[in-house]
Amino acid sequence: MKPLGPIPDFYEAKGDELAIGGRSASALVTEAGSTPLFVYSRDAIATRMDELRAAMPDRLRIHYAMKANPYADLLEFIADLVDGLDIASGGELQQAREAGFLPREISFAGPGKRDAELLAAIRAGVTLNIESEGEAERALDTARTLGVTPRLAIRVNPSFELRGSGMKMGGGAKPFGVDEDRVPALARHLVDAGVNWRGFHIYSGSQALDSTAIIEAQANVIALAARLGKEAGVAVPHLNMGGGFGIPYFDKDAPLDIAAIGEALKAQFANLPGNLNDTEFAVELGRYLVGEAGVYLTRIVDRKESHGITFLVTDGGLHHQLAASGNFGTVVRRNYPVAIASKFTEPPTETVNVVGCLCTPLDRLADLAQLPAAEIGDLVAVFCAGAYGASASPATFLGQGPARELLV
Amino acid sequence: MKPLGPIPDFYEAKGDELAIGGRSASALVTEAGSTPLFVYSRDAIATRMDELRAAMPDRLRIHYAMKANPYADLLEFIADLVDGLDIASGGELQQAREAGFLPREISFAGPGKRDAELLAAIRAGVTLNIESEGEAERALDTARTLGVTPRLAIRVNPSFELRGSGMKMGGGAKPFGVDEDRVPALARHLVDAGVNWRGFHIYSGSQALDSTAIIEAQANVIALAARLGKEAGVAVPHLNMGGGFGIPYFDKDAPLDIAAIGEALKAQFANLPGNLNDTEFAVELGRYLVGEAGVYLTRIVDRKESHGITFLVTDGGLHHQLAASGNFGTVVRRNYPVAIASKFTEPPTETVNVVGCLCTPLDRLADLAQLPAAEIGDLVAVFCAGAYGASASPATFLGQGPARELLV
Repeated sequence: MKPLGPIPDFYEAKGDELAIGGRSASALVTEAGSTPLFVYSRDAIATRMDELRAAMPDRLRIHYAMKANPYADLLEFIADLVDGLDIASGGELQQAREAGFLPREISFAGPGKRDAELLAAIRAGVTLNIESEGEAERALDTARTLGVTPRLAIRVNPSFELRGSGMKMGGGAKPFGVDEDRVPALARHLVDAGVNWRGFHIYSGSQALDSTAIIEAQANVIALAARLGKEAGVAVPHLNMGGGFGIPYFDKDAPLDIAAIGEALKAQFANLPGNLNDTEFAVELGRYLVGEAGVYLTRIVDRKESHGITFLVTDGGLHHQLAASGNFGTVVRRNYPVAIASKFTEPPTETVNVVGCLCTPLDRLADLAQLPAAEIGDLVAVFCAGAYGASASPATFLGQGPARELLV
Repeated sequence: MKPLGPIPDFYEAKGDELAIGGRSASALVTEAGSTPLFVYSRDAIATRMDELRAAMPDRLRIHYAMKANPYADLLEFIADLVDGLDIASGGELQQAREAGFLPREISFAGPGKRDAELLAAIRAGVTLNIESEGEAERALDTARTLGVTPRLAIRVNPSFELRGSGMKMGGGAKPFGVDEDRVPALARHLVDAGVNWRGFHIYSGSQALDSTAIIEAQANVIALAARLGKEAGVAVPHLNMGGGFGIPYFDKDAPLDIAAIGEALKAQFANLPGNLNDTEFAVELGRYLVGEAGVYLTRIVDRKESHGITFLVTDGGLHHQLAASGNFGTVVRRNYPVAIASKFTEPPTETVNVVGCLCTPLDRLADLAQLPAAEIGDLVAVFCAGAYGASASPATFLGQGPARELLV
């Protein structure tokens, strides 16, 4: 038996079934037309935002990092809840505009911005987080050609990292941002060039569950921004402090203590370095806002035995759930939270392997999981499917195609 | 410095540039419209097939496993070269039909076949490799409903595995096929039910470079098929022996000795168990046929330094090259063969990290690679991109979208 990750505690049953937004899993599948299906809950996202607003200082702006989930309906919904949007490509810029985000609410980070993407972003009036001296020159050239004043910030590659983060974005040699020691000269150069100077973007890691580590990283970010501003002799109108707020995926993961982070930030804001008194502070969160609000529903198409192990074979798999299968930035595969959605209230009675329909041994959804006895036709739910699911998986692999998606 | 994988030796230069099918990388990009671009070489595929035909016994049928690369032009091209096609979904069935494959040339394996896929396959007259007793009943029911005789084989979960294979498909509990000891009863049942009995499919592993291991696995497969046929008291009209032929991706990988495999198979065929005298034998190869015939071309959009390391940032990345980035079934990332395509004849002069454009530290194409000095605008080639590239990567991640593809 291997443990499953924790099911977010706001999921309820309707009859015997898992319900999302008050509707049963089977009703949702009927509405969508078929499995596999991602369902995202408006309530769960709104509640998460409410809790976050309550915990954080009023002064902190909360941005959505749309790389976590660019589903159009979700993007439109979240546009009314957040204070800004962080994008990572020209494609995301277009999707963001279609969802109603205003260019001045959008900032664009990414180490490989093509000329056409710089052009589109500067023309639209989006803030560019500049990732290198070379990119700075390309952006300035583009703005001159367009005859506009570009909104530019510098993405800093910090010398520290977010301890315990699932993915380190700072500390040492990185393709992201400009090394700390070269930032002052570049900031001075941009301000002297007459850009609409937007300050710094300092992202030190992601998917951390230790509030102490996040508090420490945020303090480091604020201190670094103050120092860089001073050294460059430039103001810091805006500071994107990155994200890093994690969600529990695996057994023994505990939810992040956002109250502690909020308290620490309030103390930080009450005692800011002088040159940050007028700074606008933002965090950019993706996974934390939408990850737990999503469920992936897939139907069991076969139940079979092999060498004493029972396999539940579903019509979904890694082509929609690459990370849950253990194939995306993971060394050792662990089980996400998984349930039999059509028997959500039943106690576990057997140990099974849940796999996808792909003809590859990589396609695993749960290993040696304790679940209620399920049959062909039952629905399996994979939780924590709201972020880095549909858009971060190889949907066309083995001729499968994308899953359906529904915001409820 | 970390070594790069070996560039397949048939790639040549045109001027300073890498050429594919006699055309320079830059000309190919111009023809396609932009980078990132997958280029697949007809010549390379045809030569590979010729070499394989020359090495293997005439009696051996060579099937293409289209999961490796379903690009429509490539599929049409390969249809004239191979003796059959192996598919893994209803989606692949449709693509295969559009490419001109005849249903009787097609067999369908996959542990999670939906009812609609069974229906489409049986209606078309495709051979189904049955993966479980439950699937057998669903197939028989479907055939009865349609009033047709289904072409059915049994996929066997062998108790042995292909030693040294990159992915084990046999040995122990698996979602694929029916355990050896239950196969005779199921075979008897299918024959008694009056199906068009097609024999066995025994797949023991993939991506092996050790010819001795493949020879051993093939001998095991033949012996097992003979034993299962005898125990069931059924003929074995067809035996799909699986694949497993690997290609060199990494430093120190040596090409597979197909001559040795061919000689061993000839000896096997000359001395077959009596009940396999009339059997049609097939191998199904995907990666081996097309993997080395493909090159991924991406353009450098930035060149930057961080803490003493030079990064070449490209407009491609893991959204097209998940496996090359080290995120697909790999524990330790190693470098694929990579070159500066626009400076293909120049000797290496520096050590660089080649990364993709995605805003994630997972997006790596080459770590600490020795390459000629490259600048913004230069083209990077990632080799061994013909299999499990475009269709096995999360193309829509971060709003990027699919790469272009070209068969030359």
